[in-house]
Amino acid sequence: MHTGFAFLEIGLTRQKNTINILFKNIFIITVGLLLYYIAGFNLMYPGFEEGAAGIIDFAGFGIAPPENGMTPEYADGGYTWWTDFLFQGMFAATAATIVSGAVAERMKIGPFMMFTILYVGLVYPIAGSWKWGGGFLDQMGFYDFAGSTLVHSVGGWAALVAVWLLGSRIGKFKNGKPQAIPGHSIPMATAGVLILWLGWFGFNGGSVLSADPELTSLTLVTTCLAAAAGGVVAALVSFLKYKNLDLTMFLNGILGGLVGITAGADVMTPESAIIIGAIAGALIVFAVAFIDAIKLDDPVGAIAVHLICGIWGTLAVGIFSTNPEHTFLIQLTGVACYAVFCLATSFLIIFTLKKTVGIRVSEREELEGLDAHEHGMDAYPDFRLNEH
Amino acid sequence: MHTGFAFLEIGLTRQKNTINILFKNIFIITVGLLLYYIAGFNLMYPGFEEGAAGIIDFAGFGIAPPENGMTPEYADGGYTWWTDFLFQGMFAATAATIVSGAVAERMKIGPFMMFTILYVGLVYPIAGSWKWGGGFLDQMGFYDFAGSTLVHSVGGWAALVAVWLLGSRIGKFKNGKPQAIPGHSIPMATAGVLILWLGWFGFNGGSVLSADPELTSLTLVTTCLAAAAGGVVAALVSFLKYKNLDLTMFLNGILGGLVGITAGADVMTPESAIIIGAIAGALIVFAVAFIDAIKLDDPVGAIAVHLICGIWGTLAVGIFSTNPEHTFLIQLTGVACYAVFCLATSFLIIFTLKKTVGIRVSEREELEGLDAHEHGMDAYPDFRLNEH
Amino acid sequence: MHTGFAFLEIGLTRQKNTINILFKNIFIITVGLLLYYIAGFNLMYPGFEEGAAGIIDFAGFGIAPPENGMTPEYADGGYTWWTDFLFQGMFAATAATIVSGAVAERMKIGPFMMFTILYVGLVYPIAGSWKWGGGFLDQMGFYDFAGSTLVHSVGGWAALVAVWLLGSRIGKFKNGKPQAIPGHSIPMATAGVLILWLGWFGFNGGSVLSADPELTSLTLVTTCLAAAAGGVVAALVSFLKYKNLDLTMFLNGILGGLVGITAGADVMTPESAIIIGAIAGALIVFAVAFIDAIKLDDPVGAIAVHLICGIWGTLAVGIFSTNPEHTFLIQLTGVACYAVFCLATSFLIIFTLKKTVGIRVSEREELEGLDAHEHGMDAYPDFRLNEH
Repeated sequence: MHTGFAFLEIGLTRQKNTINILFKNIFIITVGLLLYYIAGFNLMYPGFEEGAAGIIDFAGFGIAPPENGMTPEYADGGYTWWTDFLFQGMFAATAATIVSGAVAERMKIGPFMMFTILYVGLVYPIAGSWKWGGGFLDQMGFYDFAGSTLVHSVGGWAALVAVWLLGSRIGKFKNGKPQAIPGHSIPMATAGVLILWLGWFGFNGGSVLSADPELTSLTLVTTCLAAAAGGVVAALVSFLKYKNLDLTMFLNGILGGLVGITAGADVMTPESAIIIGAIAGALIVFAVAFIDAIKLDDPVGAIAVHLICGIWGTLAVGIFSTNPEHTFLIQLTGVACYAVFCLATSFLIIFTLKKTVGIRVSEREELEGLDAHEHGMDAYPDFRLNEH
Repeated sequence: MHTGFAFLEIGLTRQKNTINILFKNIFIITVGLLLYYIAGFNLMYPGFEEGAAGIIDFAGFGIAPPENGMTPEYADGGYTWWTDFLFQGMFAATAATIVSGAVAERMKIGPFMMFTILYVGLVYPIAGSWKWGGGFLDQMGFYDFAGSTLVHSVGGWAALVAVWLLGSRIGKFKNGKPQAIPGHSIPMATAGVLILWLGWFGFNGGSVLSADPELTSLTLVTTCLAAAAGGVVAALVSFLKYKNLDLTMFLNGILGGLVGITAGADVMTPESAIIIGAIAGALIVFAVAFIDAIKLDDPVGAIAVHLICGIWGTLAVGIFSTNPEHTFLIQLTGVACYAVFCLATSFLIIFTLKKTVGIRVSEREELEGLDAHEHGMDAYPDFRLNEH
Repeated sequence: MHTGFAFLEIGLTRQKNTINILFKNIFIITVGLLLYYIAGFNLMYPGFEEGAAGIIDFAGFGIAPPENGMTPEYADGGYTWWTDFLFQGMFAATAATIVSGAVAERMKIGPFMMFTILYVGLVYPIAGSWKWGGGFLDQMGFYDFAGSTLVHSVGGWAALVAVWLLGSRIGKFKNGKPQAIPGHSIPMATAGVLILWLGWFGFNGGSVLSADPELTSLTLVTTCLAAAAGGVVAALVSFLKYKNLDLTMFLNGILGGLVGITAGADVMTPESAIIIGAIAGALIVFAVAFIDAIKLDDPVGAIAVHLICGIWGTLAVGIFSTNPEHTFLIQLTGVACYAVFCLATSFLIIFTLKKTVGIRVSEREELEGLDAHEHGMDAYPDFRLNEH
């Protein structure tokens, strides 16, 4: 998964910031995993006591396996506490990766690291405990199979706040009009999406949390069909709107379809999955145009893909789920709770960083590239490059 | 798998057509999967009635699971109807991917999309039903384990027809002599082959359709040894013939060995697998030279790899199979049936497209690159490029 | 795995030697696998008779499955003799891949091929039989779960000898001071490391040799935590030492952590894994500086990663293992036996090659690049390049 995100992100940005993006992504994976081991897992799965409010609790540092052994009963022996930790640790890191893409090419690396530590180490697991840890939203009947809201929107809300507080890249808006800043390697971006698609198989397939081959394989089919429908519809809408066979939109449509199906991949018919993916694909095209129009600069389209399609996918469970207990109103309540919490916490963190250490690199550093200034390295020293 | 094909194909062609090739490949995967869901699967597995001719039948749109539940009996519970759909849908798309490589750098994208829809949506599943759907070739005893003929030759015959109807790229033949047009990124091509090798593990391993670890692991061993032998022999023959350590030939030899073993990976001893792979590797070198000699322009060597080695692998089952019921004559009959059907249908489709909408881009578009003209995008905008 | 090694290696070297490195790596995989089939497997698993010295034996050419069938008893039916062959064959090739990185950009390809054949075909399996084949070190109680010594140090000792006999690249030391020769594609190197991390999951997870989900998942957790700790500590130490956020050091730290945990991934608590990884990460930074200081030129850091961290990981089993039978002294004995054998055999092979056919390319060939001279190909013909 993270290989995919890293490649998508560097492919869609300029070569002069490549090392910086890779460094951030490697930092997120390694530090995220360590933080999740030290405290995150037990913040997210605190084992809420009966009658507790289910908002926040902590089961202690490190990982304390449950008394009845390492293998939870629900998993038919094919799944252990350790597997769960790894799986969830990878999810936790994803939330910060989404933000990394949105703030690319202009945010200082130090403050980004601080944000990552706080958001992955505290905000994500507390928010996650509300549903996956058995907290109040779980008790209310909110459903999010593999993270349209708990992973993608949680990252997406923070991306929105960060992009707003950070401002747009130099040259992105000229006389109020958005300018294309093309990414430096479309093959890398494409590889990133194809790897992500494959990773989503593990993501959604693994989230079945059991060895039931029928449910797992249905989940893989809904995942794939939503991705395909998202890509095709995004390419089509984009062609009708701009008269252009836009590969980037095709790719973002696939991701939008994947994010959209993630909340309910196991409770959908294949037909519903195609509809959900198709709507996600169309949403992407309009969301990207809208974000440009309100003068926000999101270099990789992270807000459109993860936030907009994450919300859509969560609400779609209330419309299309084969389980009649899932209702639109409860899904909407869940979306709202995460919106308030994530907007508030990410604003608090990023605004504090902005007013203290500062979050934006200097103009000179931005123009010359973060690689040279923050890392003293070139990504491609053997190649002759264009300046821009 | 498809990541591998996409990377091999862009690596072996020029940078100015990179976006175009990626767009085609993404189109094939997404549209192919949707088409296979809508109709392909039920064209390919129509459940021929007893006594039927077994040439064509259709079980209706969408996927109708069998009455006895989603899990077929033969699979020991480890394999479901849904898994089968995904697996076969990926195979279906492969047939069009093979053609994509052969027509690269000069075919219009619109007609290519139309060809893909017809070939993946209709021709491939009907042809597939003859064997994997239980049709007349299956009843006759024809054997093709994982698609040397049903996937690779079906794509290869269409590639042959397309290359012939399309003509060679500008500059490929000067005064009747073939000129090398080097690919723009050999690392990407190499990554493509290594990913494909890994993908073949899934391809052939998964085709065992059961959880028998002994047969599955034997299949992986024969697959690997054939790939290794194919690569080594192709590099060696190429070194003896051209006095050059040619990496591209090494890579195509590996693919040739993989295609060659695909028809019988589960009915071979490891020794036979080495022989089959070695012969496939030698065939590649001579086939590439022969295709050049008859003035066909196949930029990625798709015909040599998929058609020639696909035929060889299918016939080799009649020679080396450990199952005495497999005979050379029946295998040859199967190859001939697919040759006739695929040549006829692909000629019909591509010739019609040529005479109506036209299949070839303009000279200017070809020289300046398809990326600029069909997509309005550069694959590598930050790098300085050589014109050619 | 091998895709990861190949990408790391080309990313960290100059573009003019890319084809050469890829050719060597493809050669190692294919020829290594064939050699391992022909003789290696039965040299490594000779079935030492009771009372034998357990130093060398040979069970004959090809693979002779044991009399009690293809599925060894210890594997609970989930693991066969064939799986074992593939797995071990991939390990065998790794040893030569390590050397390939260390000798990059200046060793003649012919002698490198000869070295590979002898080292992978004879030295590695004989050395391996001492422990994994049930030989004298196994009987003594030496422990190496997945190859810190048997794979990584075996490659690392040969890399040390090769680098010493070969001399440094032109321009690496000026007036006795080491000069940075930056790699030509940091994204490729990063992709290589991320792929290797994923491959290690298979490497270490698969080495459990059984379907015990609890032990397998613990092994994956220790593997991941050691990698994360290795990366973070290497980046931190490197930042404190050089005031630079060095991505390459971060990446090598991850690899160091992985190599370090490999000897005991299944007998460690997660806390011990973090400590082992962290020490490996710190070791990397100092080892790289030390190797530079003694004027050895190892372009990709192979000696620091595979030899130093391999030794550390093997000794760490004697300190941190949860199994009280593992002692520091026995682990040290094992390390010493491999040191003596690998230094002697690799010196014998490489020194003989140096004195007969020569091992180093001409000065002109080194300056103009091995791709042009040994392969007659460019890796990136469409891009404009800087000379250096």
